[in-house]
Amino acid sequence: MEVTKSKMLRRLACIAIVGLIAEGRAADVAAQDIVSTYRGEAERLTQAALGDSAAYKRLTELVDRFGHRFSGSESLERALDWILAEMRADGLANVRGEPVMVPRWVRGEESIELRSPRALKLPMLGLGGSVGTPAAGITADVLVVSSYDELSARAAEARGRIVLFNAPFTTYGETVRYRTGGAVAAARAGAVASLVRSVGPYSMRTPHTGGMSYEEGVARIPHAAITSEDADMLHRMQRRAERVTVTLRMSARMLPDSESRNVMAEVVGRERPDEVVVLGGHIDSWDVGQGAMDDGGGSVAAWEAVRLIKALGLQPRRTIRVVLWTNEENGLRGGNAYRDAHRSELSRHVLAIESDAGVFAPLGFGFTGSDEAFAIVQQVGRLLEPFGAGAITRGGGGADIGPIMQEGVPGMGLNVDGTRYFWYHHTDADTIDKLNPREMALCTAAMAIMAYVVADLPQALPRAPVAGR
Amino acid sequence: MEVTKSKMLRRLACIAIVGLIAEGRAADVAAQDIVSTYRGEAERLTQAALGDSAAYKRLTELVDRFGHRFSGSESLERALDWILAEMRADGLANVRGEPVMVPRWVRGEESIELRSPRALKLPMLGLGGSVGTPAAGITADVLVVSSYDELSARAAEARGRIVLFNAPFTTYGETVRYRTGGAVAAARAGAVASLVRSVGPYSMRTPHTGGMSYEEGVARIPHAAITSEDADMLHRMQRRAERVTVTLRMSARMLPDSESRNVMAEVVGRERPDEVVVLGGHIDSWDVGQGAMDDGGGSVAAWEAVRLIKALGLQPRRTIRVVLWTNEENGLRGGNAYRDAHRSELSRHVLAIESDAGVFAPLGFGFTGSDEAFAIVQQVGRLLEPFGAGAITRGGGGADIGPIMQEGVPGMGLNVDGTRYFWYHHTDADTIDKLNPREMALCTAAMAIMAYVVADLPQALPRAPVAGR
Repeated sequence: MEVTKSKMLRRLACIAIVGLIAEGRAADVAAQDIVSTYRGEAERLTQAALGDSAAYKRLTELVDRFGHRFSGSESLERALDWILAEMRADGLANVRGEPVMVPRWVRGEESIELRSPRALKLPMLGLGGSVGTPAAGITADVLVVSSYDELSARAAEARGRIVLFNAPFTTYGETVRYRTGGAVAAARAGAVASLVRSVGPYSMRTPHTGGMSYEEGVARIPHAAITSEDADMLHRMQRRAERVTVTLRMSARMLPDSESRNVMAEVVGRERPDEVVVLGGHIDSWDVGQGAMDDGGGSVAAWEAVRLIKALGLQPRRTIRVVLWTNEENGLRGGNAYRDAHRSELSRHVLAIESDAGVFAPLGFGFTGSDEAFAIVQQVGRLLEPFGAGAITRGGGGADIGPIMQEGVPGMGLNVDGTRYFWYHHTDADTIDKLNPREMALCTAAMAIMAYVVADLPQALPRAPVAGR
Repeated sequence: MEVTKSKMLRRLACIAIVGLIAEGRAADVAAQDIVSTYRGEAERLTQAALGDSAAYKRLTELVDRFGHRFSGSESLERALDWILAEMRADGLANVRGEPVMVPRWVRGEESIELRSPRALKLPMLGLGGSVGTPAAGITADVLVVSSYDELSARAAEARGRIVLFNAPFTTYGETVRYRTGGAVAAARAGAVASLVRSVGPYSMRTPHTGGMSYEEGVARIPHAAITSEDADMLHRMQRRAERVTVTLRMSARMLPDSESRNVMAEVVGRERPDEVVVLGGHIDSWDVGQGAMDDGGGSVAAWEAVRLIKALGLQPRRTIRVVLWTNEENGLRGGNAYRDAHRSELSRHVLAIESDAGVFAPLGFGFTGSDEAFAIVQQVGRLLEPFGAGAITRGGGGADIGPIMQEGVPGMGLNVDGTRYFWYHHTDADTIDKLNPREMALCTAAMAIMAYVVADLPQALPRAPVAGR
């Protein structure tokens, strides 16, 4: 990794030099201003982040003590209590939890057994929001299809059956459609339940859970994920003209909404405390694994970024606020509640930064906002080049900051080496060991530098005119 | 992979040229003899193996139809019936199953639940041969140690506890000792049960089963594997001075021995039918996954090698016999029974070849036998260089052929790219998709060429004098 990183660094340095020549003197001078003004603070933040494994240790303690943190669970709320106490111990300002009502889906007991052509228990995970089956389960023949198109072509065969969508993983965007919409499509064709091949590029017989949805006026049928290995096997059995029969049992159900919280803390700005740079991740997770990568890591890295700024005695012109949003995974209630509770101050939100792609080796940030703001954050990116995180690209944000970005707040997502992200996403294998202390420290440094510099710049990031307003 | 292979090929070609210069003319001439005599057959066998994915398809059908094939299970015996019928359909000679009594360990129901510091079900696999627990399970505090040395140093703390051996994976040889011998060491220290960190370099929360043993005069305590993720977590909890308590439940038990078979088939030699080259793998597996890699792949590749020789109308001077040994995993009864049933013909066993390292990209063979024989099989290896499998090295064999190697039969093991072997070894993730049709075809070609040429050489491989005889 070190070799790759230093290569990347040299490449980025070359791009930077070419850029200086191409963009002319004005940009050069502005860039020099930001780089020379903030180089010292950037180096101090980087050294502090890399000086120990505090971020990784804090995340480890969080996930070991509380495990996964599903919306509506006791473990989430106890984790939030602990985080609030720790934030106060860190000496951060305005530490608080803002109430959010969240949906409460309970998985219960669940199983899938292959009955024909031979008996076998299949690893599985029900999909979040799914209804359950009758207590005796649903026993039916399986129709395996590779796509919605194939289901349309074979709709007559789907009636009374369990439809399995076995779409090979290409991109997440292309294949997650079967997880989110498969139950509706299968029910429309008369299926009694639906299954999907887990959405991920690699499997060690690993089922992936995730969200799904129903549609008004379409029967609500149970919907679950099996492993890619088993989806392929059932497909092969069907191709051999073997009768494939399974029994699906799920006691999943939806309970009344319960109260959770967005937790937050601040370093208050020295000149314009009412102007805010907000950064964070989502503290809730699915009810599997430890939710270490998705998104304990992003939450703790953002929190640690703010703690480091405070610990180094840095006080920028504007306020920096870390927010750990609740219920990103199965409702986005946290992101929406933040928008609603802070609507009056959104015009003074200078930038929102989210980390929800795993705290793997950071590459840079994706930015959504005005061209003028983009030029400025690109210059801030030069301060991240020493550790390979200087690539500031167009387009980016995050689910939790989506609602305030729609209100005109410039948004930014931390980009990382995502090679293995979807190996672990929403699985029992999303555990602390999949992350690396140094990479997590670099993510912390990248967020700390970006948040600090943007919060301290003499001028607020210029906003784009909001369309239609 | 193609780039790597062609590089490897060029490297091997260079080594071969340097070798020719260094070894002088005599070896050169002998090598030229073997290479020029058999190049045509080698190319035909390679093209036939690569011409379709017959080996991979046959293995896929085997593992889909019968699943894993544990000693004493109905699925193993049904798989053997099917294999015998297929071998007859292939037109192979002397197709037969030779009876072998095998041990019958039954896993039953099993679970581990963390009770303190928080409640959590841990993925686990009982280890083969372990006794069970009382029906209510064993609830006890856990002592985590990194090594036998640490257990010795902390023996006083082990009494009445469950000892967890959390030795980080280095090599299989170094770390499998805790799986095989952990129960004895823990019981000696007064522990009521023992756990091991699963033996493997990579985990997606993946427990690995495998064999273990007891010792006369030492209490037999239950012994199971948990995942590396959870072993590390329990270790961290102990380091934080948290009380770690688990409930272990296992209904594992040993039943009376039952009958299984070594299955075999032949291409009968045209000149010396009583001289035999034997090749094969073990057809039994652990009771998890599909046993596709370990060792359905080696079994089917060896079988396919012999089928190809037959299908191409090749009939070597000596007999080639494929043997699929039973009960390698938890008893080695098949390998021992073969030695006993064929003792009278072992002096005419020219070579024994085993594939039990996964049918990944083949690199060559490891050989155990006389220096003269080694020089000859190295020359045969040159016929494997076109596809990167020409590295014939000193030392090698296999568990199943071990008993006949001890009787003086020269032995050989297929060497492959083992990068991921221990990711899947003895897990639910040992499924057909972990193998690759082309790589399996190359393993088939390597075994077919080696077996055919050695069976056809004018002179039998010269044996080393057997020590002490």
